[in-house]
Amino acid sequence: MKKKHSSFGVMILAAGQGKRMRSNLPKVLHEIGGKPLLYHVLSAVGAAKQGVDVSQVPVAIVVGHQREAVEKFVQEDPVLSLMDITFVHQPEQRGTGHAARFAMDSEWGEQRVKEKAAVLVLPGDLPLISPSLIEQMSSPLGRGDALKLLTCDLPDPTGYGRVVRRGKQGSVMRIVEEKDATMREKAIREVALSIYLFDAAFLQVGLRKISNKNSQAEYYLTDLISQAAARRKKINVLKWADHEDLRGVNDPWELALAGRILNERVLRSWAMKGVLFVDPWTVRIDSSVILSEGVVLHPGVILTGTTEIAAGSELGPNVVLKNVQVGQGVKIKAGTVAEDSVIGAQTQVGPYAHLRPDSKVGSRAKIGNFVELKKAVIGDGSSVAHLSYLGDAEVGRNVNIGCGFVTCNYDGRVINGQRKHKTIIEDEVFMGSDCQAVAPVRIGKGAFVASGSTITRDVPSGDLAIARSKQVNKTGYAARFRPAPSTPKESKGE
Amino acid sequence: MKKKHSSFGVMILAAGQGKRMRSNLPKVLHEIGGKPLLYHVLSAVGAAKQGVDVSQVPVAIVVGHQREAVEKFVQEDPVLSLMDITFVHQPEQRGTGHAARFAMDSEWGEQRVKEKAAVLVLPGDLPLISPSLIEQMSSPLGRGDALKLLTCDLPDPTGYGRVVRRGKQGSVMRIVEEKDATMREKAIREVALSIYLFDAAFLQVGLRKISNKNSQAEYYLTDLISQAAARRKKINVLKWADHEDLRGVNDPWELALAGRILNERVLRSWAMKGVLFVDPWTVRIDSSVILSEGVVLHPGVILTGTTEIAAGSELGPNVVLKNVQVGQGVKIKAGTVAEDSVIGAQTQVGPYAHLRPDSKVGSRAKIGNFVELKKAVIGDGSSVAHLSYLGDAEVGRNVNIGCGFVTCNYDGRVINGQRKHKTIIEDEVFMGSDCQAVAPVRIGKGAFVASGSTITRDVPSGDLAIARSKQVNKTGYAARFRPAPSTPKESKGE
Amino acid sequence: MKKKHSSFGVMILAAGQGKRMRSNLPKVLHEIGGKPLLYHVLSAVGAAKQGVDVSQVPVAIVVGHQREAVEKFVQEDPVLSLMDITFVHQPEQRGTGHAARFAMDSEWGEQRVKEKAAVLVLPGDLPLISPSLIEQMSSPLGRGDALKLLTCDLPDPTGYGRVVRRGKQGSVMRIVEEKDATMREKAIREVALSIYLFDAAFLQVGLRKISNKNSQAEYYLTDLISQAAARRKKINVLKWADHEDLRGVNDPWELALAGRILNERVLRSWAMKGVLFVDPWTVRIDSSVILSEGVVLHPGVILTGTTEIAAGSELGPNVVLKNVQVGQGVKIKAGTVAEDSVIGAQTQVGPYAHLRPDSKVGSRAKIGNFVELKKAVIGDGSSVAHLSYLGDAEVGRNVNIGCGFVTCNYDGRVINGQRKHKTIIEDEVFMGSDCQAVAPVRIGKGAFVASGSTITRDVPSGDLAIARSKQVNKTGYAARFRPAPSTPKESKGE
Repeated sequence: MKKKHSSFGVMILAAGQGKRMRSNLPKVLHEIGGKPLLYHVLSAVGAAKQGVDVSQVPVAIVVGHQREAVEKFVQEDPVLSLMDITFVHQPEQRGTGHAARFAMDSEWGEQRVKEKAAVLVLPGDLPLISPSLIEQMSSPLGRGDALKLLTCDLPDPTGYGRVVRRGKQGSVMRIVEEKDATMREKAIREVALSIYLFDAAFLQVGLRKISNKNSQAEYYLTDLISQAAARRKKINVLKWADHEDLRGVNDPWELALAGRILNERVLRSWAMKGVLFVDPWTVRIDSSVILSEGVVLHPGVILTGTTEIAAGSELGPNVVLKNVQVGQGVKIKAGTVAEDSVIGAQTQVGPYAHLRPDSKVGSRAKIGNFVELKKAVIGDGSSVAHLSYLGDAEVGRNVNIGCGFVTCNYDGRVINGQRKHKTIIEDEVFMGSDCQAVAPVRIGKGAFVASGSTITRDVPSGDLAIARSKQVNKTGYAARFRPAPSTPKESKGE
Repeated sequence: MKKKHSSFGVMILAAGQGKRMRSNLPKVLHEIGGKPLLYHVLSAVGAAKQGVDVSQVPVAIVVGHQREAVEKFVQEDPVLSLMDITFVHQPEQRGTGHAARFAMDSEWGEQRVKEKAAVLVLPGDLPLISPSLIEQMSSPLGRGDALKLLTCDLPDPTGYGRVVRRGKQGSVMRIVEEKDATMREKAIREVALSIYLFDAAFLQVGLRKISNKNSQAEYYLTDLISQAAARRKKINVLKWADHEDLRGVNDPWELALAGRILNERVLRSWAMKGVLFVDPWTVRIDSSVILSEGVVLHPGVILTGTTEIAAGSELGPNVVLKNVQVGQGVKIKAGTVAEDSVIGAQTQVGPYAHLRPDSKVGSRAKIGNFVELKKAVIGDGSSVAHLSYLGDAEVGRNVNIGCGFVTCNYDGRVINGQRKHKTIIEDEVFMGSDCQAVAPVRIGKGAFVASGSTITRDVPSGDLAIARSKQVNKTGYAARFRPAPSTPKESKGE
Repeated sequence: MKKKHSSFGVMILAAGQGKRMRSNLPKVLHEIGGKPLLYHVLSAVGAAKQGVDVSQVPVAIVVGHQREAVEKFVQEDPVLSLMDITFVHQPEQRGTGHAARFAMDSEWGEQRVKEKAAVLVLPGDLPLISPSLIEQMSSPLGRGDALKLLTCDLPDPTGYGRVVRRGKQGSVMRIVEEKDATMREKAIREVALSIYLFDAAFLQVGLRKISNKNSQAEYYLTDLISQAAARRKKINVLKWADHEDLRGVNDPWELALAGRILNERVLRSWAMKGVLFVDPWTVRIDSSVILSEGVVLHPGVILTGTTEIAAGSELGPNVVLKNVQVGQGVKIKAGTVAEDSVIGAQTQVGPYAHLRPDSKVGSRAKIGNFVELKKAVIGDGSSVAHLSYLGDAEVGRNVNIGCGFVTCNYDGRVINGQRKHKTIIEDEVFMGSDCQAVAPVRIGKGAFVASGSTITRDVPSGDLAIARSKQVNKTGYAARFRPAPSTPKESKGE
């Protein structure tokens, strides 16, 4: 059969506020899997194999509520900004038909009509639609056909437009919105999901004819079905089997449900590539995260943003990483939190380490429990094993930092316009426990700092630095400071 | 139709031990959503719209096993103690009919008979029954009717009394307990859930006639159905559609299941009011907690007791709050644990901060990682950003506390009868890192404490306090303290 | 009926690599519930009541891919090593029939034939089969019968061999593998799970006759069904109702699913014994862990290895224990991580304590927040309440360790061949806050160490040790160190 349409466009309806979201954010900017709903829809369009260069499929996004925010997001996203996207402004939201009319009456719509294009209409709030659905919907209409319609049998069709057919499995006559449906129509389980492929000319003309005489006083895109039926046009139907793909988002609970499905898809896909999950039902991974074969993820792990984990690394329970690069064979223990950081191969981190932005840990290093890094570079083979804070610090290789070390990067002074000052610790330094470095300060290569020292001046390479008082034992004095023998209960510190 | 009963009472059966709970606690005091099972039942009674003042519905609770504990709980609960509750003592537990007889033969029961009241009988271990169920059950009986019965079709009716009807959907003849049921009766999926509305006089008289000739040698309330059927009384039935509302609790696993359903109801209800959950299936929120629009809760959050979170606040993964007041726009990061505390607006807390009871953090403040507060007041705009312990402390406004600060609130001495002493840090103090304040001690307004100082005496306002040794660098001495060059592996601290 | 077989053997097929696991580990060594798949299968065999001493049931395990690893695991497991296990080497993996043939042609197989034994064949990757299934499968075959076959109706039979019967519920004719099945056969929901009981002689002879003329060019054990049918042998069938028992593991996702079911079984079984779970769906417990009545486990708890928790102990959210012995009435608070350690009765630990291997905490003790122990013994009634590190330490009874204490167990020196040195703190010592003990060092009984002291020499019993500088307040000097008044935002430390 000869294809009618050589040309193809996509219209995405993204103007709604989504009042039930109870939020100022426009509905399509609410996120699942770390990305707005609209991103997922556009991304499915982009991933569909339509036999053409994706960047050349003309897409119109109808925007309205907080349109600046929607446009800004699309324009700034590194992937979406490559697509051929036109924004159409719908000043008031008066129904899907009203939205589509603005698009078809715009220059973008005129161009589609001129090209005799088919136009795929997608709601911006169906984030789980797949590239495969888009491929199947966008297969060309037959000659003279007006439209194709996507339907699905739902276990609970409440709230959706029902598909009224001529007889049980006969041709489609019309779509009835929930609020306009009779009891009998409400019992129909086959619903329309506001996904259509239209002949552009039919769509443009038809939209000018629809009325808002219904219980909501809105213009419904579904009226075009009746128009086509009245004109005895063939109404093609694609009935989709997996209703989870078509889950819409209208309130925060539905947002969470869609997020769960997306998350399980992401996790399952990683499992098939050799990632081991001890308990995937407690793990969250953004679709933007990249994992490798042999990675092991314990319960409660949360990975977001541009995080990448190299082969053979293991993340303990409740590890939370955002934009973190993790090398091969790394072990990150329970509860470690890191952001905008890099961790080298074969390094151990945690439990309960905290890597704040711009931290960079080398390979074969160790960052232990209750250690905080901030803008800190830790060299290969170095160890910061316990209860320390390194901020604005550069630590060389094979350095050993004892327990309780603190970089005093801020003491209120402003030097050369900077409020935070730098601590530099060169290779092979041995820093005893409970030391502080009052920045700006440099500890030279191979220096040794005695436990309990407050370092305020540079330490030359190879020196021993010490800044503490001599111990005095006052014989028998303990009794003066001790209360009468306490019960075990009382003796516990609080 | 003229209503027969102008009066109405509620009888709750709460005498059982619940042996399968494997616990000394009486069954109805086991908790879900932070409250005992009995609380949830009474709370549904209280919330039902019965057209009368709830505090005036006479409620009888039949108690037995550890009745003192049950009575104490009800009497001390601030909400329940407002209800008109009478306790009836059932000395031994010999079945539901036996329990109800004690109530009907008591003064409470006599009063209901005198008032020609209808009596709603509820088991104390059905914590998911809704106010709406109670409303529908308590609609008055028709003139001359003896009772109304609640039934439900269960997917798995094992263990429940089956409803035996005349024919398939005919009138109810009797209820057969599991252990007395024939194979054919066991196949019936419609069960009775021990929820009844009785004419008080019928109930009182009927209970005196029932026998315990059955496999368990117990008196069953269900025998009244047979009595009514034998006397050709009409047996009204309310068949309830949602069997989850009727989930009973007989062992710790069923307790957990009921808790999960309650939790999901609570979360969903908050979602509909604009609370965003990234992954509600890992979050637990007591029904007593109060949230606001725009609150964002990450996975693993647990909120209990009287916790309240104001608008726009965000709680990171695994934050655990008990009785904590959180102001607007607060950000609480991963793993923070707080109890009986207050956190002011726009403040940041965590990750891994620990606020012990009686901590009060002002607004625009910062409590950072690995910081412990106990009976500590932190003023507006102040910062305790790293690895510190403040106990029995008062910190003013715009104070900066460096890393590793410790209030030595206890050194064994008893002063004026107190074992714990107070540290007072006035406004705008700058406390360097790794300082200690040996309480009782006061640091005056705007004072500056040098890093590494142990403060044992008061510091006057505006002074610089310093208590540390001068640094000495011993040239070339490091080698004396260092081992032969170690491999990277060996150089790691443990 | 006279039993034909007085003797019984078990053959387990464990040679496969499991390519879809995307891992070098042999498939049967992948773990759920802390043990390899093969362990669970052997353990079910061991637990089945076969009226004989389990250690005397002859078991053959057919090994191939990385057989050394499989054999090593079985031989070193303390339980499995007691069983009568023979390994049979299948050099290449060419199907189940090929594997079984190696076993039956081995000395082990010859012995079974000689004994006229029945041989139960089990796949090594069905970790959820129950002892009861094995009991029912191993009930003897009738005289002259060739085999018994386990089948199950699956909701989704994709991938499994379908059971083709004569008529709808007629006798079994053959099993058709997915890849060789017609469309009609694919619609059959009854599948064979590769669990069979064979007459040993029939099995040995039959295996020599099967061919690999099928789409996979493999030898299928299922061909023996056709052989039996052709010889008009009776094909006994055990149809198993609970298809979850028969869940196979072929990829990491199925591994996670099987792990979830096993975990829920373990938790439910503990709940029935009186363990209270607030939210079992977020808790993970290895099948090797032992709990007690009245134990309370909050969400996110993970217990592995040989962990045992005594009665009445409560574990807060996200507590992670591996090989830890916990006494009665212990309270372990949120996020505590412990390994290879012992915690005495009535002790409190956490939140966010970290007990590294070989830590031993006495009874009525307290280990508080952000405290790390490593090879540390803490005596009864002692307290280490805040932000401390004790490594290679022995602490006596009723000792109070202040906040910020550090054992400097490693300073680079090697003494007597040791790099880590010991700190000994005797009974009733009072250690002030922010002290360090430079090991090796001993603090004598009842000694008092002043806050802020670095202890480098032994402290005799009863002495007061002090090693700190005198505080100096420099009047009005603070202004020299303070910047111009900062805005609240700026004053926050980072």
